[in-house]
Amino acid sequence: DVTQDVDEELIQKFISEVDNLEIQENLRELTKVPHMATTPGDEKTVQYMLKRWQDPDTGLDRAWREEYLVYLSFPDPKTPNKVTVESPTGKVLYTARKTEKPYGQDQENPDVVQPYAAYSPPGHPKGKLVYANQGKPSDYLYLNQTLELQGTIAITRYGGAGRAQKAINAAPYGVIGVLVYTDPRDINDGKMSDITETYPNSWYMPPSGVERGSFNTQYGDMLTPYLAAKDDTYRISPSKITGIPPIPTQPIGFEDAYALICNLGGLPAPNEWQGAFNCTYNLGGPGFEPTSNFNDSQVKLDIYNRGEIKNSSNVMGVIRGSVEPDRYVIYGNHRDSWVHGAIDPSSGTSVMLEVTRVLGRMVKQGKWRPRRSIIFGSWGAEEFGLIGSAEYSEEYYSKLSERSVAYINVDISVFANATLRASGSPSAQSVILKASQQVKIPGSESTSVYDNWIRYFNRSSPAYGVIPNVGFLTGAGSDYAAFIHFLGVTSMDISYTYDRTKTSARIYPAYHTAYDTFDYASKFIDPGFTSHQTVARTAGNVLMRLADSLLLPFNCSDYAETLEGYLSKALELYTDGLAVRNISIEPLKVAVYKFRSASASLDKMIRDSDLANETPLKVRRINDQLMLLDRAFLDPVAFPDQYGFRHVIWASSNAGVPTFPGLADAYSRAASSGLDVDWDETHRQLSVLSQAILGAAYTLEEVI
Amino acid sequence: DVTQDVDEELIQKFISEVDNLEIQENLRELTKVPHMATTPGDEKTVQYMLKRWQDPDTGLDRAWREEYLVYLSFPDPKTPNKVTVESPTGKVLYTARKTEKPYGQDQENPDVVQPYAAYSPPGHPKGKLVYANQGKPSDYLYLNQTLELQGTIAITRYGGAGRAQKAINAAPYGVIGVLVYTDPRDINDGKMSDITETYPNSWYMPPSGVERGSFNTQYGDMLTPYLAAKDDTYRISPSKITGIPPIPTQPIGFEDAYALICNLGGLPAPNEWQGAFNCTYNLGGPGFEPTSNFNDSQVKLDIYNRGEIKNSSNVMGVIRGSVEPDRYVIYGNHRDSWVHGAIDPSSGTSVMLEVTRVLGRMVKQGKWRPRRSIIFGSWGAEEFGLIGSAEYSEEYYSKLSERSVAYINVDISVFANATLRASGSPSAQSVILKASQQVKIPGSESTSVYDNWIRYFNRSSPAYGVIPNVGFLTGAGSDYAAFIHFLGVTSMDISYTYDRTKTSARIYPAYHTAYDTFDYASKFIDPGFTSHQTVARTAGNVLMRLADSLLLPFNCSDYAETLEGYLSKALELYTDGLAVRNISIEPLKVAVYKFRSASASLDKMIRDSDLANETPLKVRRINDQLMLLDRAFLDPVAFPDQYGFRHVIWASSNAGVPTFPGLADAYSRAASSGLDVDWDETHRQLSVLSQAILGAAYTLEEVI
Ligand SMILES: [Ca+2]
Ligand SMILES: [Ca+2]
Ligand SMILES: [Zn+2]
Ligand SMILES: [Zn+2]
Ligand SMILES: [Zn+2]
Ligand SMILES: [Zn+2]
Repeated sequence: DVTQDVDEELIQKFISEVDNLEIQENLRELTKVPHMATTPGDEKTVQYMLKRWQDPDTGLDRAWREEYLVYLSFPDPKTPNKVTVESPTGKVLYTARKTEKPYGQDQENPDVVQPYAAYSPPGHPKGKLVYANQGKPSDYLYLNQTLELQGTIAITRYGGAGRAQKAINAAPYGVIGVLVYTDPRDINDGKMSDITETYPNSWYMPPSGVERGSFNTQYGDMLTPYLAAKDDTYRISPSKITGIPPIPTQPIGFEDAYALICNLGGLPAPNEWQGAFNCTYNLGGPGFEPTSNFNDSQVKLDIYNRGEIKNSSNVMGVIRGSVEPDRYVIYGNHRDSWVHGAIDPSSGTSVMLEVTRVLGRMVKQGKWRPRRSIIFGSWGAEEFGLIGSAEYSEEYYSKLSERSVAYINVDISVFANATLRASGSPSAQSVILKASQQVKIPGSESTSVYDNWIRYFNRSSPAYGVIPNVGFLTGAGSDYAAFIHFLGVTSMDISYTYDRTKTSARIYPAYHTAYDTFDYASKFIDPGFTSHQTVARTAGNVLMRLADSLLLPFNCSDYAETLEGYLSKALELYTDGLAVRNISIEPLKVAVYKFRSASASLDKMIRDSDLANETPLKVRRINDQLMLLDRAFLDPVAFPDQYGFRHVIWASSNAGVPTFPGLADAYSRAASSGLDVDWDETHRQLSVLSQAILGAAYTLEEVI
Repeated sequence: DVTQDVDEELIQKFISEVDNLEIQENLRELTKVPHMATTPGDEKTVQYMLKRWQDPDTGLDRAWREEYLVYLSFPDPKTPNKVTVESPTGKVLYTARKTEKPYGQDQENPDVVQPYAAYSPPGHPKGKLVYANQGKPSDYLYLNQTLELQGTIAITRYGGAGRAQKAINAAPYGVIGVLVYTDPRDINDGKMSDITETYPNSWYMPPSGVERGSFNTQYGDMLTPYLAAKDDTYRISPSKITGIPPIPTQPIGFEDAYALICNLGGLPAPNEWQGAFNCTYNLGGPGFEPTSNFNDSQVKLDIYNRGEIKNSSNVMGVIRGSVEPDRYVIYGNHRDSWVHGAIDPSSGTSVMLEVTRVLGRMVKQGKWRPRRSIIFGSWGAEEFGLIGSAEYSEEYYSKLSERSVAYINVDISVFANATLRASGSPSAQSVILKASQQVKIPGSESTSVYDNWIRYFNRSSPAYGVIPNVGFLTGAGSDYAAFIHFLGVTSMDISYTYDRTKTSARIYPAYHTAYDTFDYASKFIDPGFTSHQTVARTAGNVLMRLADSLLLPFNCSDYAETLEGYLSKALELYTDGLAVRNISIEPLKVAVYKFRSASASLDKMIRDSDLANETPLKVRRINDQLMLLDRAFLDPVAFPDQYGFRHVIWASSNAGVPTFPGLADAYSRAASSGLDVDWDETHRQLSVLSQAILGAAYTLEEVI
């Protein structure tokens, strides 16, 4: 039936069948053992996903695995990384913990990987310690004005700069090693005692907790940019990798950071650099306070990390579409964790499995088959740099570019249980809002997710007034990156999150530690799993609408509103400075204006049509216009040096201004350097951007 | 009616209505005055195209112009370029002709542009003359072994190397200026006398005839790569242009070349360097024979070319499709010439105008409306580097990528009247062959274009036995370049051409001279214009089939056959050499194998379907697979330094081997340099290629 459309009764049926206890049991199963990418624990989760998706009663039409040989980085289990304080005579005065303190069997599991900085080089630097705040360029610049950085080890706190950036920024000053820790001020609302305040007493990070992570700045397998990492694929030499720490780097817990920082000598650090410890954070002499036990001692890092090419699996599953099988709605999450990964990523995987259970049963019982095909992806090796999803996008580039309607990402599904949070392409705003209106919040028969959400995050839209604020997908924080930035597929990222009036934690405190366990999730994050249930209902509702709607539920005028917002910021910030350089910003204005008018006419055309009674080819034509809108913003030569960033509206930016990223970055560089070559690049970015917006507008106009 | 399909009666009606005398009158009108790009003569042709395409009885649905500000290069009409022989005392012993000898009013027209090398820099080099054959790298290498090239002027003949290449290859040896001429051996079957043998007595080039041309190696406006050249578009500085002559260059007629070459001193040039002149071609001492009048004299070039940014127009016209208006079949040719351009390009434009007259009338009379939309393009500034079509492809990149079914190029429609010649993407072979079977050759009621063609150009196909040979679109010889190489749109190029047993002319002898006139075309190329008519019938038939067929007449198995041919060549040439470097060619074999099997299943699926009774969405799905097949071979990072070449099967290659271009070029470089970096690039090219073919195969498989 070519007019098949969303069946609201089936959506209600889906919502009612999504079960919190099923999600809880999914999570229990997924978090039995640590399942870091490519480990035996990871393989167990592969088998579990396959079993679930191949289940004859609740599985999908088909499920299978896809493998890639990808470059990962691990510590040496036989020779753990070590951080020590060594006296001038070579005596070891202090040794940082090699593992996190166990509070139960989970932490005692021998497969818990030692905290480490993936992709940090091995090495044995020894030097005087300095405190470098967050390791931003400005932090080292400041330090360098007061002391000699050559030959030092810098201790930094998480936040402010990307993981790898703390070492990349340090190396030019002669710093030879970097430590990183999470300050209790940034993650624990200042709490530090594991007797009373931190896990297992609460959700806060225990003193020995360490955030692991991938220390890189580019996503995808680093040896095979633009090529799917198969057996005989060309690989660059690991020595050619850029964007990883040039000097040994190691993360430590705040109890060890306390011992180091509170013994530092030198001048007091600026106020903004101070953290939650009950001491003054000094810069370092460099080195320790002469009056301390560590007087004249050095800090030594012994890092034994090594790169390995390993076989990582995506697990894929599909429900074939009935009317337009060649249109794909993709829903995905990574499967790999650092340790047990109860929240990251298994809270999302548990939700995905509940969505597939309910939908799979409807399909198996013959009650439903979506209009379009649905593809589920359980990605491998995300924690090392979104690798599984990126390799998938490279291998199936053409097919996915031609046919993908949307990508829905639900990674950490529940950070906390206060409110929905969503980011996405502007054209997806309306379907997310719609779905959120149909789902109730946990424990309420009356309050919708939408009504609750708008209290926490809202904005004033010129078209709609005050509405929940759907954020932008500007970075590469999870597996949506390859979809939105590389493929130009309309994407969204959905989760439940904090009440910001109750905590200032950067992220949930067990993030990437050995405490991110089923116990932690079920006691402190979402007891009863009702926030998980709410996310499953909302994301599943979005998925069903995208897969079933006769007319795709994308709104191009909402894209115009976003572009207009960006434009007004750009006009305010750049018009005069560009004019001085004889660069007219007019083409950008014209392009946004034409985009608005083209989207208004397409909307009018849609409103004036009775689509159920039109020819199926007319509906398909409009749907193609909507589906391909984000694709039109791709330009593979816009940012040739940034792997996988081709979307000129959403590419990542350093300028920190809510406007077009390429223009903002180029302008800020030019304004600061004053160089002709930088102003030329600013002009080029302006032309690239204007042409992309205009080109996108052309795709919305009457087709000929 | 969603099942609208080709109507064979309408095709017969079209064929019968195509009129040779209409084409003759089109050509007469188009060639009244010289119409070099952006000149008043060019504007006249813009107006004429608009008038024809807006004609209420025979015009199109709509026609309009689109303008670009593009970088062109012209001589100074007030200070013509000059080539002289100067004695040691500064006496001018010889001056080459500044203009071609008039044989009628056409040549006397003051708007005939002086022969020049577009994009050659201005300058006044003076030096001893040497003869450098075709200006290939091997030619200069040879010369450099026998004499001192520093400070010399090199005279070269057309052929063997691209126009700009002759100077680019020369400059590293210290050569300071380049002359180029057409040797009568290469263009005139040796004929030289304008009293008896050359135009106006025959089609051969008169002694003063000079081939003009664009001396560049990259296509599109050179200041705006990847950006449509609009008012405020970012432009690189002209000083940053690469791929143009670094030293002054000037073309001259063979009568002047005779005076120079036959007076050269030094050793005799090798046998293959000898041309048709009745003298021995010497290499030059450097300089002239001591016994000649020019003893000790130098050759001086006075070049006054200058770059100008000019407004160039495309003229566009459309017939809106009835069922799938969002699918475009594009038919185009450039409009600009060097002088009157009767054959190049107006023979093609005359054919296009006859095609639009017949189709336009059918539309205006309500007898026909194609299933898909048809776009006609009359491109500007092709002669300067395919500029109009390239800018169009940049401006409408997204829209054209999404919706273009095919591009048909008919530039020079009649080189000679012996046989059809066609090049194109392999999937278009079948529709070209089909159309050629339905059209008769001039003067015959029985012999089809196909039957005649197969006698001149044929090959043995594994699938079909002996069939006419459809060539490959490997270069950037006309406006198909942006479509096939940049957009990945299935393209073809169609013309009528020589009997190679009757002439060895590089191209028709008046090419790019002031003799390419209506008089020339109607007397010597196609008296009666029946070959033009045959091309119009064939190309128009192809166009109607592409626009009307329910199922697109593209055959993906024919693509597989071509890939298999390339593969077997690659296996033969590279397997062992790659194995020595531990590079496996297996992924390429697997990719081609999978492509073959995917195309076989798609073909079977098509054969097994009763498409007229299927849902329109199933037909559309298959058509999308066929339409987007060439798109799947694009990789924007395959050849990052070659503007506009993204199609990994058809990109231009220097290796001169009928196989995959990127692999062939990289392998040949690596085999000759032996450098690791070159073998790495060879491996990368192999991976890029294998991934593209495999990715294309995925698009042909069952859609989910
Ligand atoms: Ca890769
Ligand atoms: Ca351009
Ligand atoms: Zn995650
Ligand atoms: Zn994570
Ligand atoms: Zn031409
Ligand atoms: Zn030409």
